[in-house]
Amino acid sequence: MFIVLRQGHTEGELTEILEQLTQMGFSGHVSQGVERTVVGVVGRTYPELKETLEMWPGVDEVVPISRPHKLSGREFQPQDTVIKVGDVTIGGEVLVVMAGPCAVETEEQLLEAARAVKAAGAKILRGGAFKPSTSPYSFRGLGQDGLDLLAQARQETGMPIITEVMTPQDVELVSRYADILQVGARNMQNFTLLDEVGKTQKPVMLKRGMSATIQEWLLSAEYILAQGNRQVMLCERGIRTFETYTRNTMDISAIPIIKKLSHLPIIADPSHGTGKWHLVTPLSLAAVAAGADGLMIEVHPRPDQALKDGAQSLTFDNFQQLMAQVVPVAASVGRKIA
Amino acid sequence: MFIVLRQGHTEGELTEILEQLTQMGFSGHVSQGVERTVVGVVGRTYPELKETLEMWPGVDEVVPISRPHKLSGREFQPQDTVIKVGDVTIGGEVLVVMAGPCAVETEEQLLEAARAVKAAGAKILRGGAFKPSTSPYSFRGLGQDGLDLLAQARQETGMPIITEVMTPQDVELVSRYADILQVGARNMQNFTLLDEVGKTQKPVMLKRGMSATIQEWLLSAEYILAQGNRQVMLCERGIRTFETYTRNTMDISAIPIIKKLSHLPIIADPSHGTGKWHLVTPLSLAAVAAGADGLMIEVHPRPDQALKDGAQSLTFDNFQQLMAQVVPVAASVGRKIA
Amino acid sequence: MFIVLRQGHTEGELTEILEQLTQMGFSGHVSQGVERTVVGVVGRTYPELKETLEMWPGVDEVVPISRPHKLSGREFQPQDTVIKVGDVTIGGEVLVVMAGPCAVETEEQLLEAARAVKAAGAKILRGGAFKPSTSPYSFRGLGQDGLDLLAQARQETGMPIITEVMTPQDVELVSRYADILQVGARNMQNFTLLDEVGKTQKPVMLKRGMSATIQEWLLSAEYILAQGNRQVMLCERGIRTFETYTRNTMDISAIPIIKKLSHLPIIADPSHGTGKWHLVTPLSLAAVAAGADGLMIEVHPRPDQALKDGAQSLTFDNFQQLMAQVVPVAASVGRKIA
Amino acid sequence: MFIVLRQGHTEGELTEILEQLTQMGFSGHVSQGVERTVVGVVGRTYPELKETLEMWPGVDEVVPISRPHKLSGREFQPQDTVIKVGDVTIGGEVLVVMAGPCAVETEEQLLEAARAVKAAGAKILRGGAFKPSTSPYSFRGLGQDGLDLLAQARQETGMPIITEVMTPQDVELVSRYADILQVGARNMQNFTLLDEVGKTQKPVMLKRGMSATIQEWLLSAEYILAQGNRQVMLCERGIRTFETYTRNTMDISAIPIIKKLSHLPIIADPSHGTGKWHLVTPLSLAAVAAGADGLMIEVHPRPDQALKDGAQSLTFDNFQQLMAQVVPVAASVGRKIA
Repeated sequence: MFIVLRQGHTEGELTEILEQLTQMGFSGHVSQGVERTVVGVVGRTYPELKETLEMWPGVDEVVPISRPHKLSGREFQPQDTVIKVGDVTIGGEVLVVMAGPCAVETEEQLLEAARAVKAAGAKILRGGAFKPSTSPYSFRGLGQDGLDLLAQARQETGMPIITEVMTPQDVELVSRYADILQVGARNMQNFTLLDEVGKTQKPVMLKRGMSATIQEWLLSAEYILAQGNRQVMLCERGIRTFETYTRNTMDISAIPIIKKLSHLPIIADPSHGTGKWHLVTPLSLAAVAAGADGLMIEVHPRPDQALKDGAQSLTFDNFQQLMAQVVPVAASVGRKIA
Repeated sequence: MFIVLRQGHTEGELTEILEQLTQMGFSGHVSQGVERTVVGVVGRTYPELKETLEMWPGVDEVVPISRPHKLSGREFQPQDTVIKVGDVTIGGEVLVVMAGPCAVETEEQLLEAARAVKAAGAKILRGGAFKPSTSPYSFRGLGQDGLDLLAQARQETGMPIITEVMTPQDVELVSRYADILQVGARNMQNFTLLDEVGKTQKPVMLKRGMSATIQEWLLSAEYILAQGNRQVMLCERGIRTFETYTRNTMDISAIPIIKKLSHLPIIADPSHGTGKWHLVTPLSLAAVAAGADGLMIEVHPRPDQALKDGAQSLTFDNFQQLMAQVVPVAASVGRKIA
Repeated sequence: MFIVLRQGHTEGELTEILEQLTQMGFSGHVSQGVERTVVGVVGRTYPELKETLEMWPGVDEVVPISRPHKLSGREFQPQDTVIKVGDVTIGGEVLVVMAGPCAVETEEQLLEAARAVKAAGAKILRGGAFKPSTSPYSFRGLGQDGLDLLAQARQETGMPIITEVMTPQDVELVSRYADILQVGARNMQNFTLLDEVGKTQKPVMLKRGMSATIQEWLLSAEYILAQGNRQVMLCERGIRTFETYTRNTMDISAIPIIKKLSHLPIIADPSHGTGKWHLVTPLSLAAVAAGADGLMIEVHPRPDQALKDGAQSLTFDNFQQLMAQVVPVAASVGRKIA
Repeated sequence: MFIVLRQGHTEGELTEILEQLTQMGFSGHVSQGVERTVVGVVGRTYPELKETLEMWPGVDEVVPISRPHKLSGREFQPQDTVIKVGDVTIGGEVLVVMAGPCAVETEEQLLEAARAVKAAGAKILRGGAFKPSTSPYSFRGLGQDGLDLLAQARQETGMPIITEVMTPQDVELVSRYADILQVGARNMQNFTLLDEVGKTQKPVMLKRGMSATIQEWLLSAEYILAQGNRQVMLCERGIRTFETYTRNTMDISAIPIIKKLSHLPIIADPSHGTGKWHLVTPLSLAAVAAGADGLMIEVHPRPDQALKDGAQSLTFDNFQQLMAQVVPVAASVGRKIA
């Protein structure tokens, strides 16, 4: 961390800064520039220190240097994290495709979708039992009944299931059913929920918040990791920008950035990332070409009758075509679809 | 809700659309433009319907018309909501100032701050016992000990207290202490939490999420209102933009917009809204001039030693000066500071 | 265009609206919903009409329907525009790669770069003679001397050249040298410049403004097309968001969106789109997988000594590797690199 | 400027960095932290240097320290710049109100507006003769005829006029008419235009670009100042964010920030800043309370028939009411309306 002094600071201010740093267990290292004096803060700094130092007389600005994420960083663990879910491996050479309806609606809808996505090559079944909804007057999911249907679909198809958990109280319940716990974008900074999923032994998929920086996202992963659960994967699902044509703006650059900064697997969700079914395939191909470890795709037997997010859901035919197109793109970057 | 048909749609597609609408209990009203055919959907529509209709063959776009918020809207209740907290009234002619430290740290820090803000004219004491923190390695608040200190400060000063509740499990606990429950920006779409605070009889202050539109914010208020709790106030605390000089961009226009669309009181928080103490006073004056019903200000005995958000906290002197400057501005727009 | 009336509007207001529409040469088509009355405006509407109508008594909101872009739209021209520049074709099956230094600095730097990018498979040489610079104290380009060097590089290598024109006065000069005129992101709404390049017979590459919506971008293309120049290609180069890790956020979804809405070729510029050389290759692959018609890449003999944008420039080795990786990805989506 | 080295950098890399800095005329100052080594760069650095240094082997990040703006900064000139335009003073104790129609349409419209805004207390007449327009098919202004009408209105009312110049070729023409040259938001980084207005002796109002940071805005002002024209005022007119209720998000915090960083006067334009006439008055009051030196307001005899921006224009009555409300707010912060 560096303290930039105000032009025209006094000698007394500088002396005081150095003394206070010493009292706090740091040492200060003065560097005299042409226009500015800067004091390097040597010691184990932490993000909040910045704000404290900025209050001191004579200080103009404080610039943090150390990366605040530790357990999620490549510096902590150079090799890729690989997560095993049943027979499926996430984070290795083989790409994983998770697919299914946005929300579990009926037994028929879910089973039909499960069979279809399995036949087309998906390895993990997705489906929401607890659904976040902007309006209290909209469909909020089937709850435990939805979890039961997911378990039934797993039994029939053999596919592991991923489903969202929205609140700390439900972590125990959802963990009994899910093979992967999903933390949604709106809950990326629901810190109590992060703590709770961190205490389970279940793999967790942490979606990026819609206005979260990459650093904040990694710090949220850090919450889960710090509780002892090291089976964390990240999911890019689009960020909020000024553009209104798409529901969100899919930040494809986040994929190689995460691969560089972190050892955690990164999944792309172009269904939420774009909000439009006709953009799902091109953005899936882009994500794979950019190095994603997997895809999460919404598929519905009849998108035009979906209770939620129909506009971004693929039909079975469209999903089959997507899979057919993903295979050669994956191969072109040295990856396989199982 | 309006369905805009694709140029070159077929007659069959139009017929099918009208039939499906009828089956769903709506009626369709065709309107032939020069370039486009549009079908008005007559009936009780809901936001998710848009996505369903967009899937139908021949449809280019679906445009919603009805405002999705009901209970929070001026159309539902034309007169302003006024909330009573002890002797303090929020939402009427008299402006309310809430002040205190970001986080409760020690008995001395809190009591010192409580006495100082009271002396300067604040009516409600703020202070966080449960603190959201981007990093798991930072200060997360004193928890119940912090609540006890807040209760002690209330007893000594007679000021009602507002404090944040971060998770549904804590609603019962925090409600036993707080006079006003605060839902933070990161939890604006923590729907389970909204439901829970909606079931209490405590006034709730709902902060705007950092990337929430005004409509989404009102829909989150709707969750609380729909549970039967009508004592809801909103708090503008800055939105996330590309500008990096400030921590957030304070959206002052949200104040008159909320006053126009909704009957709920609106409070401004320029401490979080700017992240810089020297901007807190000018933005407080701006908020009051624009029609805010109150201010929420972070004040700390020694901001340079604060465990959290020191950079945006006022000293006692600065807070006194702020209050002195707010009084004439409030008067100039026909409002009083108690 | 649709006029949504206020709840509780009077009959007189509705009558007045219909009469005024008739006087303006439109006809109004009334549609009575459960909550709202809506009037469809039939006739040749234009974007500014929205604002006029919103002023009328009884009106709550005006919703435009017609797409405002005409000449750039698929509805106007269903087949792809293909642009020929010497032997190079832009917009067809074969992808085009444009490469070279951000700014022309010296004869040696430019010729060295030109030979290297040609050897690696680039077809068009890029290089800035007139450079936009945020600060007046930074390098602003060599001007006409830079153009002379570009002409020399073309003569030696046979590659067509693309270079930026920043102001209407320079259009004639730059047109004498360039094979493709580039309009930069900061000038996307420099309407006089758009008019001027529209009057030339040179192909134009129009970069997306850093906060331009896709619709605004197409409307700027419309300026050029409306002057009679139909050789327009678009270039996605990243948009401004809250994320600070990258210089801009590359909007990969813009590529398939442009292909859907418009017949114009779309080029991707991951150098500006990310601002970091190590992200250029993964984003290039993503852009190609998503359907881009070409790439624009900054390459410099010694990026660490570049006068401009070194951090986002590739070395010759890195560019060669990029080209080697692009070839199979292009093939996987049915495209070729010449 | 500080160079942060990669963890695990080699001694050779550090030695090389220090040698290269020396060769470039800088000196390097090494500072060894617990986790990182940092090299302070001593000498006259410039923004582009950052990118060069980031290319060097062993470098992880480069952090600039010096503020890049010079002539516009408080450090260069501590006292406020005050600009005289005829009898009107901009930047002193007295607030200036500029008002008039968005676009000059007819003699009658302009003169009627000029008389009305003068009667209500405006001191400067605004009106656009050259109008930027997103679409080529919309009204683009009357051009020189509009300038003639402005001159006529000045003659009749005695009010100085401010009008936009859009392109370098027109600077000479517009300067013959205008008392203040306006550079619009879309041209904030039209560097040739900035150079040209910098060469005139006319006061210039520089609007903030819709996605410009405050630092970029000041650097654009720097272009004008660097040409010798020191009569520059800034104008906050809203920035582009994700919020769609308003046309832009008015960044009121920019007002005190500019007052702190710069000596240049700052004007607020809530008409463009909000895009909705009913928000113009509350945001005007907010801007004045926050310390603005003046207001720029769109006023039209019949907003519902305006050719441009009717939705954000005030009627004469509304403008009178605005003026009546601004006077006490200005007084409450120690300012006067002439």
